[in-house]
Amino acid sequence: MLQKKNKYVVAVVGATGAVGREIVSILDERNFPISELVLLASERSEGERIEFRGKNLPAKKLAKDSFKSVDIALFSAGSERSLKFAPLAVAAGAVVIDNSSAFRMDPKVPLVVPEINAHALEKHTGIIANPNCSTIGLLMALKPLHDAAKVRRVVVTTFQSVSGTGKDAIDELASQTVALLNFKDIETKVYPHQIAFNCLPHIDGFLGNGYTREETQLADETKKVLEDSTIRLTATTVRVPVFRCDAEAVNVETETKISANEARAVFSRFPGVVVYDDPSRNLYPLQLDVSGKDEVYVGRIREDETVPNGLNLWIVSDNIRKGGALNAVQIAERLLK
Amino acid sequence: MLQKKNKYVVAVVGATGAVGREIVSILDERNFPISELVLLASERSEGERIEFRGKNLPAKKLAKDSFKSVDIALFSAGSERSLKFAPLAVAAGAVVIDNSSAFRMDPKVPLVVPEINAHALEKHTGIIANPNCSTIGLLMALKPLHDAAKVRRVVVTTFQSVSGTGKDAIDELASQTVALLNFKDIETKVYPHQIAFNCLPHIDGFLGNGYTREETQLADETKKVLEDSTIRLTATTVRVPVFRCDAEAVNVETETKISANEARAVFSRFPGVVVYDDPSRNLYPLQLDVSGKDEVYVGRIREDETVPNGLNLWIVSDNIRKGGALNAVQIAERLLK
Repeated sequence: MLQKKNKYVVAVVGATGAVGREIVSILDERNFPISELVLLASERSEGERIEFRGKNLPAKKLAKDSFKSVDIALFSAGSERSLKFAPLAVAAGAVVIDNSSAFRMDPKVPLVVPEINAHALEKHTGIIANPNCSTIGLLMALKPLHDAAKVRRVVVTTFQSVSGTGKDAIDELASQTVALLNFKDIETKVYPHQIAFNCLPHIDGFLGNGYTREETQLADETKKVLEDSTIRLTATTVRVPVFRCDAEAVNVETETKISANEARAVFSRFPGVVVYDDPSRNLYPLQLDVSGKDEVYVGRIREDETVPNGLNLWIVSDNIRKGGALNAVQIAERLLK
Repeated sequence: MLQKKNKYVVAVVGATGAVGREIVSILDERNFPISELVLLASERSEGERIEFRGKNLPAKKLAKDSFKSVDIALFSAGSERSLKFAPLAVAAGAVVIDNSSAFRMDPKVPLVVPEINAHALEKHTGIIANPNCSTIGLLMALKPLHDAAKVRRVVVTTFQSVSGTGKDAIDELASQTVALLNFKDIETKVYPHQIAFNCLPHIDGFLGNGYTREETQLADETKKVLEDSTIRLTATTVRVPVFRCDAEAVNVETETKISANEARAVFSRFPGVVVYDDPSRNLYPLQLDVSGKDEVYVGRIREDETVPNGLNLWIVSDNIRKGGALNAVQIAERLLK
């Protein structure tokens, strides 16, 4: 458990990655009470410098003894590193907030979106997991609906940006686009197929039943965060040639009827959700506009007449901020309370 | 009705547009029996030349008297021109195959996908309508499922390319992309928002209930082509920064159970459908690969366990070919039989 202090030693693991850099900037923005910031990265990125509160801090190589005197460790360096180093950080006395999928479905590990289930933090035993980016965006909208009308079934199709894969994927979309516009051959390294001017219905590995891990996680994590194993969710997750933000087309069936207007009211009251829905003025959430925003945006709110109690939604969230870095920092802030 | 001849006078209205040019090239490819090809276009495009069977034919200005001695007129110049000129073409003795939405829901006008409901052609009274591009791709997969297990409800999310909007939209995606990569300001003329590196949940105009015309058409045209008004379909249609082909994530509920393997077999037997579905080798339909293909590709075929009889599909079709030009020429071919 975290001891109360005025200021904390905070480590960011994977500090030079897309989410890691955003964590550092959000810790600064939100005046997180930090006595020392420890930036940890792989050998490849050792020595890269990141600005924090006017200082250019070098990333140190992640090692077994990296966590001495660390109070809070924010991990965003992939499952393999989390599996290896998070238990070492806990053993050294740190509380770990992990952005990878390594511990999310571990029954001893709380899976937390602070606006939704902050109470789950009370039972943590050293590691707290951050849900997947596409889950966080979705659940910020599903939670108020679930409270108002009980969510029964969800069909979700995602439009996920390349930043969710990391910095190399951002470079790949940019360099493939430049190559194509110059009539040159493209290189594919990060994705199995060209991502420029193309959509890939493939995020994370495939399982035996034909679903991807991303699609399966979305269903599993929804049940865990909303603490309701009776919610039925089926997903198709798609990578689109967009740099930042995840969009999701969501069809929801609820137990009791909720009109589009009632849904708008329910979303508007939920902290961290913005209703942006005026088709007559061509206003609906766009990945371009939500980039850099903390809130999850909901629009295209329509009643689905093909079922007794149905709604269609279009949800957009910044996968790097609320979908990753911001949610992790918000968890840390709750731990201080 | 079309009189039997050895060769026909064929007019293409909107010949210089994206679909019009493809119609000309498909008429050639498929050796359509043509004695004379009449290319018609707006004043703006008058005089533009298009190659057909070794000759460079000039586009003539579309006018009231354009249809003298025309046997078959293939319209692809927008609803307004179809509404004005298709009745004139019929009055002049031509059979009209119309790619616009003008006559699709007219009860006197057959709405035809030849593989699905060619029999509806028998009752035409001069005008035959081509369904919307996203409808054609969807129905090529839904029809064999409907025959095998009776489709009851469909939730569809589309990933539609800019070519569906026309040549100006293709230019807009290209020029915006170039501008952004050169750190210059972009221009938006065709779409209300930036399409480069962005997805727009907005295709065609909005109706009072929050749905777009595109979404509404998809439901209405499905019922008409499949000749089953009890099918319930709800849609979210999205424009993506891709040049060509429409992809669709489709959740289908059927009356009787159909397994993923049975669905694969049923799709494989249907003319014009290709099953492309081997996740273990990262094989699934991609807009990039299906571009220029005549067939509709189906992959990511999975059972949806959240309902008793559910399937998830990923369908990709070339919106300009099967979604427009090819389907129109196939209708003309059926008329000759």
